[in-house]
Amino acid sequence: MRTAQVLRLSMAHPGDLSELDRLITSGTLAAADVVAIIGKTEGNGGVNDFTRGYFTQTLMGLLSRHLGRPSEQLIREIPCVLSGGTEGVMSPHYHVFCISDAEAPVIRFPTALAIGTAFSAPVAAEDVGRRAHVESVAAAVREAIANAGIDRLDDVHFVQVKCPCVTVARASAAIAAGKTPLTNDPNKSMAFARAAGAFGAALALDEIKPDDFDDASLLSDFSIQSPRASISSGVEVECNEVVVLGNGENWGGDLRIAHRPMGDALDIGGIVDVLADLGIAASPQVSPEDAARIACVLVKCEPDRRGKIRGSRHTMLDDTDINAQRHIRGAVAGLVAGVIGDGRIFVSGGAEHQGPDGGGLIAVIASQTRG
Amino acid sequence: MRTAQVLRLSMAHPGDLSELDRLITSGTLAAADVVAIIGKTEGNGGVNDFTRGYFTQTLMGLLSRHLGRPSEQLIREIPCVLSGGTEGVMSPHYHVFCISDAEAPVIRFPTALAIGTAFSAPVAAEDVGRRAHVESVAAAVREAIANAGIDRLDDVHFVQVKCPCVTVARASAAIAAGKTPLTNDPNKSMAFARAAGAFGAALALDEIKPDDFDDASLLSDFSIQSPRASISSGVEVECNEVVVLGNGENWGGDLRIAHRPMGDALDIGGIVDVLADLGIAASPQVSPEDAARIACVLVKCEPDRRGKIRGSRHTMLDDTDINAQRHIRGAVAGLVAGVIGDGRIFVSGGAEHQGPDGGGLIAVIASQTRG
Amino acid sequence: MRTAQVLRLSMAHPGDLSELDRLITSGTLAAADVVAIIGKTEGNGGVNDFTRGYFTQTLMGLLSRHLGRPSEQLIREIPCVLSGGTEGVMSPHYHVFCISDAEAPVIRFPTALAIGTAFSAPVAAEDVGRRAHVESVAAAVREAIANAGIDRLDDVHFVQVKCPCVTVARASAAIAAGKTPLTNDPNKSMAFARAAGAFGAALALDEIKPDDFDDASLLSDFSIQSPRASISSGVEVECNEVVVLGNGENWGGDLRIAHRPMGDALDIGGIVDVLADLGIAASPQVSPEDAARIACVLVKCEPDRRGKIRGSRHTMLDDTDINAQRHIRGAVAGLVAGVIGDGRIFVSGGAEHQGPDGGGLIAVIASQTRG
Amino acid sequence: MRTAQVLRLSMAHPGDLSELDRLITSGTLAAADVVAIIGKTEGNGGVNDFTRGYFTQTLMGLLSRHLGRPSEQLIREIPCVLSGGTEGVMSPHYHVFCISDAEAPVIRFPTALAIGTAFSAPVAAEDVGRRAHVESVAAAVREAIANAGIDRLDDVHFVQVKCPCVTVARASAAIAAGKTPLTNDPNKSMAFARAAGAFGAALALDEIKPDDFDDASLLSDFSIQSPRASISSGVEVECNEVVVLGNGENWGGDLRIAHRPMGDALDIGGIVDVLADLGIAASPQVSPEDAARIACVLVKCEPDRRGKIRGSRHTMLDDTDINAQRHIRGAVAGLVAGVIGDGRIFVSGGAEHQGPDGGGLIAVIASQTRG
Repeated sequence: MRTAQVLRLSMAHPGDLSELDRLITSGTLAAADVVAIIGKTEGNGGVNDFTRGYFTQTLMGLLSRHLGRPSEQLIREIPCVLSGGTEGVMSPHYHVFCISDAEAPVIRFPTALAIGTAFSAPVAAEDVGRRAHVESVAAAVREAIANAGIDRLDDVHFVQVKCPCVTVARASAAIAAGKTPLTNDPNKSMAFARAAGAFGAALALDEIKPDDFDDASLLSDFSIQSPRASISSGVEVECNEVVVLGNGENWGGDLRIAHRPMGDALDIGGIVDVLADLGIAASPQVSPEDAARIACVLVKCEPDRRGKIRGSRHTMLDDTDINAQRHIRGAVAGLVAGVIGDGRIFVSGGAEHQGPDGGGLIAVIASQTRG
Repeated sequence: MRTAQVLRLSMAHPGDLSELDRLITSGTLAAADVVAIIGKTEGNGGVNDFTRGYFTQTLMGLLSRHLGRPSEQLIREIPCVLSGGTEGVMSPHYHVFCISDAEAPVIRFPTALAIGTAFSAPVAAEDVGRRAHVESVAAAVREAIANAGIDRLDDVHFVQVKCPCVTVARASAAIAAGKTPLTNDPNKSMAFARAAGAFGAALALDEIKPDDFDDASLLSDFSIQSPRASISSGVEVECNEVVVLGNGENWGGDLRIAHRPMGDALDIGGIVDVLADLGIAASPQVSPEDAARIACVLVKCEPDRRGKIRGSRHTMLDDTDINAQRHIRGAVAGLVAGVIGDGRIFVSGGAEHQGPDGGGLIAVIASQTRG
Repeated sequence: MRTAQVLRLSMAHPGDLSELDRLITSGTLAAADVVAIIGKTEGNGGVNDFTRGYFTQTLMGLLSRHLGRPSEQLIREIPCVLSGGTEGVMSPHYHVFCISDAEAPVIRFPTALAIGTAFSAPVAAEDVGRRAHVESVAAAVREAIANAGIDRLDDVHFVQVKCPCVTVARASAAIAAGKTPLTNDPNKSMAFARAAGAFGAALALDEIKPDDFDDASLLSDFSIQSPRASISSGVEVECNEVVVLGNGENWGGDLRIAHRPMGDALDIGGIVDVLADLGIAASPQVSPEDAARIACVLVKCEPDRRGKIRGSRHTMLDDTDINAQRHIRGAVAGLVAGVIGDGRIFVSGGAEHQGPDGGGLIAVIASQTRG
Repeated sequence: MRTAQVLRLSMAHPGDLSELDRLITSGTLAAADVVAIIGKTEGNGGVNDFTRGYFTQTLMGLLSRHLGRPSEQLIREIPCVLSGGTEGVMSPHYHVFCISDAEAPVIRFPTALAIGTAFSAPVAAEDVGRRAHVESVAAAVREAIANAGIDRLDDVHFVQVKCPCVTVARASAAIAAGKTPLTNDPNKSMAFARAAGAFGAALALDEIKPDDFDDASLLSDFSIQSPRASISSGVEVECNEVVVLGNGENWGGDLRIAHRPMGDALDIGGIVDVLADLGIAASPQVSPEDAARIACVLVKCEPDRRGKIRGSRHTMLDDTDINAQRHIRGAVAGLVAGVIGDGRIFVSGGAEHQGPDGGGLIAVIASQTRG
């Protein structure tokens, strides 16, 4: 019986995977069980954030050594989804998602955490942020759901997609080849790529239909959104990498996942509710005992593009010194970490079409076993 | 009978005091009643934050027009304490503290918000961050307490001090004059100035004695702290400006102030507790009715200088791109705003010796009249 | 006979106009002679750069005191063109352009510096960056040329325009009123506003014809450009402010202006050539004697949007930490200041359509009298 | 006969060493001949610049594959000195220094480029920036000079040292172990480390004597300096890595090195002079033919700590948004690249005690064979 496990490990710098190395070397973890990584590195989360590439290179080198297989293969099999930017109280960390074939446990829960992954073909620079990109993501998400053995789409709680974007260099190459990329502004390209990822996830989850949108809907019709889609974008990937997390009947283990939309950046209610879904109280903070049950906190958020939060002007979009995504990640992470009592949370900006407009979403994985 | 009033006004940019202008012009507010301003502008909060000077110039020009007195006088009478930096969800705003002589109200509370202000003499560049600076602050705080007519030091809940710091230019001038400023690094100077302000407040509040410290204690012995001291520092002031807020028996009005230390940047408990002190529940968020009772939220915070929060490494102090104070303000404001449900909060970094080491403090002013 | 004078003054901070105040107070300069200001303040040069508003408020207050006329009038008569951002070796300074009616000088030069100014009507948010904006600029430039009494367009060497842009707040207001602003991204809006200004200047200078472009040409057809157009954009203005500088036959004084395009950010040749046009050698640096003849150095530059300079990749456009305009200003200022031997130079980014694509332009005003 | 070669290669990102890989794979370059790397990556050059570690990991992995030896050994044998920060017109690139045993060439120059390298033992956190650090550097420099076979110290033209610094984490560990690091401010620590490196180089070059300084001289007595010392500091190294470059009689090849101090950030004369030393004219720019002779340009520079350049205030040290080192690198690189006509130049900040106070130095390697 397949059993999902999630390890939350810290790092001293983006190339430091020594904790994972120790666990594998000591036999605690089998390198072959690792199926996906979701982590936060301390870069700027922007176009020139190379901490993600550094981490990925280090991870693949490490697994390559332990598995005796080339990095070039592993990188096409194991999604490594990193969000740069540990603004404020966030602490750099990574979640190692593992699947092992364990015997049926003594205590069996009706459902337990299910994991599925998939990779799309590479996305051409001129397709980034357009329907072809959306459909490429949707197909990969469907494949990942199938891999997870989840039958009901309602049991899917989190769809992580890492999308490629267009750098100035890639855009120039495409233009030279007679293609027309959507934009040659890398930050803009990252936003369109995230939109395409969200539309793709929503399509695969039956939240929207193919006729509900066209190219112009991306970054424009914000009524189209999925509260289960979490999209990152970066210069270091060329195809869409997908990780689907849900609760499955055919899975062992004691972990369970829940999710909630966040209405805006002040929606502490969404945070408390998702914890309540997992039987965890926050009054006002999760107790140390319950905090120990939490394996993973995943958040998407967004600086409200209308320039106001609950009627008050914010300054995130008008700031030439600090990128707006860095602002919002720091703020929402401050709120979530304060409720959880822990800075090892994955809070990712760029939540266009991922949860309500101006808000985002939160998913939490926790043990079903009470202390 | 003296009555204290606090208006919270928004601004479109740091030179926009149109809301205050309208209130005075319409007769809602008497310009002569304005005794202090505490606000947050959208600068970077650092040495080259000129939004504070811009706001102050505009304010003094406005009051000068309404009062028919020169700006140069008013700036020496009305403390204008601004903290730059509205990172994340914070919204630029300013609190106008007013004192009017109203008749005794029908509903009289045992105590009500009391306000006192004072100005020290200018602090020489070479004194900044040293004992002479501490004593200068302490004397001004004592004077402000006396002005507020507060007899018991326990009734003081918030001491705001704006201290001068040393720019490269000021340091050079002092050195040319044969003096030895503590440092010629402006960011460092601002930190020492804040430390001197906190020691001065603690001294005036009898929290520490003159023999408890020497020059070397500043920015070094963090067991010395006051949970009621809130210190800003900036290039635009040359003397210490003090605003004391407390609850007084001889004051009318229905406002009341409370404060709590914050143990660290994740201390949501401190926030909930200070609200409870004022009879306001946050479960998890303050209701819109109770939020309407809140006139002012004042917070100090600090990136933990030991590099960790609850055992997890943070990256604020190692970031060459974003100043650590900008990081922590954004994070703590995210937490406080999420509990309050409002981004119009004063969250100021640089909390050295202001509340517990690695934490800070929160003070809230709210109406005692329930809706 | 009209005589133009240019004073280059330093400032200790963006609200410091004490040098100008001293000159007026001492009678060296008549306040009524001031017709325009062009300066560099130490903000970030972006949407949230309030140093320009701060400077302008201070300037208008100062002139108002000396002239006994309200600031609100003066601000509509005296263009105050400020570029934020003194990256690297640049020193904050401002040029005061004055016109006095002096007697014909003993030594009369065939032509001498001529100055003309003009203001357009306010530009609506939805017009910013479109043809209506271009035509508004062109009309104002023509008016300024006429004011300068310059008959031949070839004698115009520098056209400075300050254009309004659209902030998130202005865009929201326009959308609420049923209008469609070009963009609600403030940095993008500033770029379109600068493009409109350059097209307007080119139109007025007969460098392009009305049929040579349409709305889509802006920020797209970079073969359209003027090597004499210098455009700034900022949140603090609502109409186009124009200053035209050229050489006129009916002007006294010993100043003269010259300009050259800069082919790219490494075009030291353009710098040396414009100095040679004025009889000043740089081998490799201007001598102190000749440097004393230089009254004003005005430069526009741009991070090459194709991502390369002379075949080598640059990283300015891919940097999420530092705005690309700050990068290029710092670099080009380093080059120009090194040749001139002085950091008091006006180097402004955002040179879209102002000089060759990827380059920009340089204009220098110097005395015709050799030491 | 030993022959030194210098290849200047470009990179698409900090982990891209594909150009080097191609050269080795094609047999153009023998991996075993690589003795040192000096390069510029596109990080921020600060404490959290991980582009250097990423590059180094990639380089060592590449050489490991080609040489069949473990990375862990190579990293202790081949100095890999990277300066983060390609502000402005700089282009990310790296110089590969190679030594091959070639037959005596037909055309033999009296002297030719000589290269020597050395590694010190690890420097303890509490030693960083103190005399023990200075002496550790000096010993390593002497060893590298000996390795280069340079007999006269005058023939040494450039000493590159990469020094370890103290992060918050390292400082905390040292304090926990009862040690007293000089500072726990990482940016400060990097500055002290660079000072120690410069003192060490000056000591080894007989420019100063052991009695000429004590611990308090570092970052304090700026009359102590070496115009041949170029020091970097970073979190990713634990010992001092040294590369010495000079001209040796027993070396083949046609390269030659020269150096000049730079008096300040505007010292274009120093740049023109060092080129003249190599028989290259810049009037005002190096011709394409001569530019092709230039193999390597190495520059150190510094924001003048007194806040002024040639009497005019600069704002680099008062900027809370952009690190002062990023400012100065961008400015000086703009000047040097403009003279050379190429952005592939190594310009490194943090020039404390490296060249004149407020200035720095420049070294150039060029072919002695005219086109």
